[in-house]
Amino acid sequence: MSKINMGNFFEDFSIGQKIVHPLPRTISDGDVSLYIAFTGSRFALHSSDVVAKEMGYDKKPIDDVLMFHLTFGKSVQDVSLNAIANLGYAEMSFPNPVYVGDTVSMTSTVIGLKENSNGKSGVVYVHSIGVNQNGAVVLNFKRWVMVHKKDHSTLSGVNEVPTFAKTTPIADVINIPTIKTVDTDSTGGKYFFEDYVQGERLNHPEGITIDNSDHTLATKLYQNNAKVHFNDHMMKSTPMGQRLMYGGIIISMARAISFNGLQNAQWMYAINSGAHANPTYAGDTIYAYTEVVETIEVNREDIGLLRLRTIALKNQTPKEIENPKSEDGKYLPNVVLDLDYTVVIPKKKTEKK
Amino acid sequence: MSKINMGNFFEDFSIGQKIVHPLPRTISDGDVSLYIAFTGSRFALHSSDVVAKEMGYDKKPIDDVLMFHLTFGKSVQDVSLNAIANLGYAEMSFPNPVYVGDTVSMTSTVIGLKENSNGKSGVVYVHSIGVNQNGAVVLNFKRWVMVHKKDHSTLSGVNEVPTFAKTTPIADVINIPTIKTVDTDSTGGKYFFEDYVQGERLNHPEGITIDNSDHTLATKLYQNNAKVHFNDHMMKSTPMGQRLMYGGIIISMARAISFNGLQNAQWMYAINSGAHANPTYAGDTIYAYTEVVETIEVNREDIGLLRLRTIALKNQTPKEIENPKSEDGKYLPNVVLDLDYTVVIPKKKTEKK
Amino acid sequence: MSKINMGNFFEDFSIGQKIVHPLPRTISDGDVSLYIAFTGSRFALHSSDVVAKEMGYDKKPIDDVLMFHLTFGKSVQDVSLNAIANLGYAEMSFPNPVYVGDTVSMTSTVIGLKENSNGKSGVVYVHSIGVNQNGAVVLNFKRWVMVHKKDHSTLSGVNEVPTFAKTTPIADVINIPTIKTVDTDSTGGKYFFEDYVQGERLNHPEGITIDNSDHTLATKLYQNNAKVHFNDHMMKSTPMGQRLMYGGIIISMARAISFNGLQNAQWMYAINSGAHANPTYAGDTIYAYTEVVETIEVNREDIGLLRLRTIALKNQTPKEIENPKSEDGKYLPNVVLDLDYTVVIPKKKTEKK
Repeated sequence: MSKINMGNFFEDFSIGQKIVHPLPRTISDGDVSLYIAFTGSRFALHSSDVVAKEMGYDKKPIDDVLMFHLTFGKSVQDVSLNAIANLGYAEMSFPNPVYVGDTVSMTSTVIGLKENSNGKSGVVYVHSIGVNQNGAVVLNFKRWVMVHKKDHSTLSGVNEVPTFAKTTPIADVINIPTIKTVDTDSTGGKYFFEDYVQGERLNHPEGITIDNSDHTLATKLYQNNAKVHFNDHMMKSTPMGQRLMYGGIIISMARAISFNGLQNAQWMYAINSGAHANPTYAGDTIYAYTEVVETIEVNREDIGLLRLRTIALKNQTPKEIENPKSEDGKYLPNVVLDLDYTVVIPKKKTEKK
Repeated sequence: MSKINMGNFFEDFSIGQKIVHPLPRTISDGDVSLYIAFTGSRFALHSSDVVAKEMGYDKKPIDDVLMFHLTFGKSVQDVSLNAIANLGYAEMSFPNPVYVGDTVSMTSTVIGLKENSNGKSGVVYVHSIGVNQNGAVVLNFKRWVMVHKKDHSTLSGVNEVPTFAKTTPIADVINIPTIKTVDTDSTGGKYFFEDYVQGERLNHPEGITIDNSDHTLATKLYQNNAKVHFNDHMMKSTPMGQRLMYGGIIISMARAISFNGLQNAQWMYAINSGAHANPTYAGDTIYAYTEVVETIEVNREDIGLLRLRTIALKNQTPKEIENPKSEDGKYLPNVVLDLDYTVVIPKKKTEKK
Repeated sequence: MSKINMGNFFEDFSIGQKIVHPLPRTISDGDVSLYIAFTGSRFALHSSDVVAKEMGYDKKPIDDVLMFHLTFGKSVQDVSLNAIANLGYAEMSFPNPVYVGDTVSMTSTVIGLKENSNGKSGVVYVHSIGVNQNGAVVLNFKRWVMVHKKDHSTLSGVNEVPTFAKTTPIADVINIPTIKTVDTDSTGGKYFFEDYVQGERLNHPEGITIDNSDHTLATKLYQNNAKVHFNDHMMKSTPMGQRLMYGGIIISMARAISFNGLQNAQWMYAINSGAHANPTYAGDTIYAYTEVVETIEVNREDIGLLRLRTIALKNQTPKEIENPKSEDGKYLPNVVLDLDYTVVIPKKKTEKK
C-alpha cells in the first residue's frame, strides 16, 4: 500500500516546510468554454477577443476565478485531503493576468501549526503561490485547514498561529493594461467606478440551480480530488448523506450572478476573506446580493477598486434577507457564502462615446 | 436597485428602435466540443478539418445551429427577459460561415408592436442581425415575443404588425465554397440532392434523452439567461413545477438526430418558420422525423437545396405518428417542434469515386 | 425508409470485407478539457505542455483512452449497432501518439464469422485500424460482437473463428520520445519502473460516482451512437429499465482512478484483453484496484513496461474484495471491469534530481 498517496496528516507538516504541488496545468479554450457552461458567466472581457482588444489587451484573459480553481485544485492532495474542515483564507490576490496556453502551478509553505486540545487534530496554515510558465505570480493567498492527527495519544503542544491582514494589501502597481475604451453596448452595463457608493446594495435577480453532474464535472475539471465532492457511495454513510458541493463552485456562481449590476467589474483584484457559511447540495438554487463596502481610489486614472461583500443564498431570494446573520451572530441557514473581495472597475473616462 | 437590468417591458420598445445586444462572443474549439457532447451531432463537415478541406473549405466551419445559439442568446436580456411567450420567428438565414476564432455579435431593430386588448401585455417584433468581427452577416432573422406591460391601466392602441415571407428568400449568391469532393465513406451517407423527392419521409431511428445538467449547461454556455431554464426554485411555484427546457435545445437535438438519412445535408441555409408545439423537461427522450417539402435547384452545379419539415417528438417514436396535428388543427401532446427549414446538399457530381 | 442506416446484420458481413468507418474526427482542446471533466484524470503528461516538454515531447499528447473513444465510437454504426453483446477485444495497441489538431479515422476488416446454432444471431470478428491524417497508425485492435441475423430460418453454418494472442505483442520500436526528465514534483508520484514488483497490489482510494449527464455527454462527444446509452424511453421497456453506461466510460474511470499509485505510468501501451463483467448505471460509484502482473524490460534505457490488471468495482471498496471471481469462476456482482493492459513507465535514471 505504500505507493498510495493517502494525503498528509497534522504530524506531516512543519513550520517552513515547502510543498511543490503536482500537476502544472496548461489552460485551454476548452476550460474556458466549460467554465461558461458551468456558471453562465457573462463578463464580456472573458468572452470576446474583440472586446478585450478594444479595452487594451492583446486577447481575452482567463476569468480569475477559473484560474483560481485550476491552480488551487492541485493543493488538495497535499494540504487538505484529510481535512476535517477548510477554515478560511486570507490576503488572496491575482497579481497577473493569465491567458489560454499559459501553464499554472503552485507551491505552498507552511506558516503556522496549532494542535487542538483534544489531541485528535490540528490546524495547518499555508501560504500558497501560483505562477505561470514564466514564473510570474498569478495567485497568492494564505489558507488554513483543520486536519486529522495520526497519533491521538501524543500532544505536541505546537501553537504557532500567524496573523493576517483584514484585507489584501493593495499593490503600488496593478498589472492590468491601461484601459483604453469600454463599450457599454458590449459589456452590457453602463455603470463605472464613480457610479457606485459605499453602502449600496445590489439584489441580483438571477437564481441558478446546480445539479450533481454540473458540480462534479467542474470539480473534476479542476483536478480537485477531495472525496466528499465525488463519492456518493462514501457520503451516503455520513450525516450529510450525499455529495457535498465544492465551496469554489459557489464562489463561481456568486461571481457569475453578480454580473447583473456589476457588468464592468470584470477583474477580481483580491479576495479579502470568505466563509462557506452552510453546505450546498445538488438541487440547490443559488442567489446572491452584493454590498459595496468601500470605493477605493488607486494611482491610476483609468480604473478604481470596489471592495464588495457578496452573500450567496440557497433557495431564497435576496429580497427576503436583510442581514445574513441572526441576532446571535450566526449565519442564517440559507446563507452559503459570505465573500469579502475587491474588484477592478474602469472609470467613466474610459467609456466609449 | 437601479443598477439592476430587469429587462424591457412593452412600453420600453418603439418602432425603429435599435438595440445593440451585449456580449460579443469569440467562438472556440471548446464550444464546438461541448456542442457535440450536448447533441451527439455527427455531421462530418463540422467534426473534421480533413473532410472540410477535401470539400473545399480551409478548415471546418461551425455548425450553424451552434452559431445561432451563441449569437441569439445575447438578445434574451434585451428582448425576451420579460417574455410571456416566444411566439415565432421567420425569414431566418445563415448568410456566411463562421469559424473557430470568429467573434459574433448581434443587433436588433424593432419592426412591429401590437398591444394586446387586455392592456396587460403586447407583442414586440424585431429584426435581428448577427455579424462576425469583420461585419459580415452570419445570422439574419425576425422574431416576435409577447412581453408584459408595466402599466396595465393605460391603453396605447399601438398595432403595427409587419408581414413576413412564408419562406426565407433564397439569395442569388450562396456563400459556400464550391464543393470539390464529398467522400461518402467520411460523411457516412451516400445520398445526394438528386436522391431526394418531394413528399419523402425519413423516420430517424435515434432517440436521445435529455437530463437537467445537459440542457442547463448548454443554455448557460450560450449565455442565454432566461430564468425559466435555470431556476428550479422559482419554477417549482409555477404550473410547470420545474425548469423548462430552452426551445433551441430541441432544434439542436432534432437537427442532430436528422443526421441518419441526411448525412450530406451539412449546412442550414434557412429556417423558414418554427413552432415549439409543447414544452420539454428533463427526462424527456427526443425523437424526430423529416419530410422533404421541396427540392430546389439554385444557380450552382455543385449543390441544391432541400426544404424540409422536421417534427420532433417526446417519448414517442416517429412511426407511431402519422400527422403532428389532430383533426382540430392542434398539435398532438407529444409533438415538441415543427421546424420548416432549408438545407444545402451537394449534387452527385461532387461524389468521390 | 431506405435512406436510413439501420446498421449491419450478421448476413451483411463477409470474411475479408473492408469497412471504412465515417466521421474522421479532428481532436481539439475542447475534447481534452471535457475528458478531464468526465474522469478527473490527473496524469501530468496530458495536462501540461510544460511537463510534456520537460519529458521530451514538443507538446502534450492526447490521453490514449480519449483517443480510443474518439476513434472507436465511429465503428459502432457499422459493426455493433445491432449488437446483442460486445463480447471482447484483443491485441489492442496504441502505436503512435496523437496531438490536438490531429484527425483520426478508422477502418475495419472482417476476420471471422461464427453463426450461432440457434440461427438467430452470430459473432462477427473485426480487425480495426485507426490512423491520423498522415496515415500513421494510432490504434490497432481486434474485437468481436454478437449481432442479430435478419433471417432466422436459414442456417449458413459459417464458422471461421480467428485466434488471438493472449497479450498484445510488444513491438521492437516503441514510438515514444526518449524521456529526458521526469519531475516527480510535477507528476505527483515518486515511483519508477524499478519500484514495481510482480504480484504487487494497489488499492486506489478514490471512488467516483457517475450520473446520467456525465456518461451520456461523454458518449455523445465520442459520437458513439449505440442506442442503449442514450435512449431512456426505449430502455425503460427492457429488463435493464434504464440507460446502460458505455463500457468505455468504466475503462476511463478505472484508468483515472489508477493515477494514485501509478502517477508516472502516463502511457497506455496496449490493452491485452478486457471484460465488462457487469453493467453500470447512473448513480454507481466506481472504485478500482490494480495488480502488477508482470514487469517487462524493453530495449530502451529510459523506460520499461508494466503489465497490469485493473479491476473496477461498483459501490464497493477495493479492500472489501480479495478476488474478483467467486469459486465457481464467475465474476462477483460488483465487479464491472477486468482489464489486462500494459503501460509504459520511465526508469529511475530519468528522475529529475
